[in-house]
Amino acid sequence: MTPQYRLHFAPDNASLIIRLALLELDVPFETVLVDRANRAQNSAAYHQLNPVGRIPALETPHGAMFETGAILLWLADRHGALMPAPDSPSRGAALSWLFFLSNTLHAEQRMLFYPDTYAGVAPPQMHPTLTASLHRHLTLLDGQAAKGTGWLNAAQPSALDLYIAPMLRWCALYPANKTGWFNLRTYPALAALAARIEARNSVLTASRDEGLGPHPFTAPQPPIPPIGSAT
Amino acid sequence: MTPQYRLHFAPDNASLIIRLALLELDVPFETVLVDRANRAQNSAAYHQLNPVGRIPALETPHGAMFETGAILLWLADRHGALMPAPDSPSRGAALSWLFFLSNTLHAEQRMLFYPDTYAGVAPPQMHPTLTASLHRHLTLLDGQAAKGTGWLNAAQPSALDLYIAPMLRWCALYPANKTGWFNLRTYPALAALAARIEARNSVLTASRDEGLGPHPFTAPQPPIPPIGSAT
Repeated sequence: MTPQYRLHFAPDNASLIIRLALLELDVPFETVLVDRANRAQNSAAYHQLNPVGRIPALETPHGAMFETGAILLWLADRHGALMPAPDSPSRGAALSWLFFLSNTLHAEQRMLFYPDTYAGVAPPQMHPTLTASLHRHLTLLDGQAAKGTGWLNAAQPSALDLYIAPMLRWCALYPANKTGWFNLRTYPALAALAARIEARNSVLTASRDEGLGPHPFTAPQPPIPPIGSAT
Repeated sequence: MTPQYRLHFAPDNASLIIRLALLELDVPFETVLVDRANRAQNSAAYHQLNPVGRIPALETPHGAMFETGAILLWLADRHGALMPAPDSPSRGAALSWLFFLSNTLHAEQRMLFYPDTYAGVAPPQMHPTLTASLHRHLTLLDGQAAKGTGWLNAAQPSALDLYIAPMLRWCALYPANKTGWFNLRTYPALAALAARIEARNSVLTASRDEGLGPHPFTAPQPPIPPIGSAT
């Protein structure tokens, strides 16, 4: 039987978040490598799936989707897990933080990793300015994660947890040699989240398939992917 | 009867998008000014509603929400309008573009308006680099808006339309004296969207309440708010 989902991925890219969600939901899916080494994300064929040219894209029975947060939310609603249901009293708060992850933490990470894309030529102050902002936002998120809401940092993983854990990894790894600002232990609730997610079978599988090493969230090492390139 | 919603707003801020949605949904709501002139968005009281300290926040019967995209989506689902329903085949595409508006167009506008917040001291290349990216993303969006999907640029306004129209306004107005890159006519489908939304009663009401002038989206003028400050 052909799986109903096809994930277009590159190792250790944002597609990792969707891979984890698909594994946690235990739904069959195929993967298709987006060959970053050859800038395949800029190809006309890929732009048919994701016109913005970022990774991931997910082919579904209803057509292609893009944007990590959108795919996470759609999968959660379709499979009745990972997010409070649309009529749950917790839905509003969970959505607020999901959009915050997407348009603040994730957007700031993009700026940190690709500063010239936004600033032309990044000035020396850009890195410390962005990491100060990221630290402030991680601290906010840590405070929320400490509250035990049921949809963030709880026993059962949520869409938010699966979004956060890889972003913690990327703070620790990228850009190479400029990660001294980040120490996971500064954020104890997020560190607990990372450890709990890391113990999931979904992470063992994803780590094997993308070459993320034995402790991809609590003690990340640069990826050694069996296929494709992270950058 | 006390309205079930209380919108914390500043004139011509992102809260305008939520005001339009509440008016379109025809649900009663109160408004509370966030006094930007006194930096009230940074107060402890406001951070109880929105810990990130940005505008808007919306108080609901289920607690406070923040993030424009999250509030839009939650209101749409709760009131059964403005977005495809969770089980609609159109839901995935509409969510993809909603997150794109939030984490790409809106995030890039924040960078354009407050570059020092991200770059420390913004280099001269930052403005043209960001506006080139915004132009590319507006062009993408214009292509999508030309397709007539039913949930973007259709006869009945959608959450996406209500998000887009104010962002077009802000491209035309901010930062003052650095808006020469933007011409709405470059994006014909978005120009049609702006004209259609501008004719809604919701916009007449919002424009009166926030001082946005007679053509807030197709021929924007700087706001003359009856209360509060836009910056």
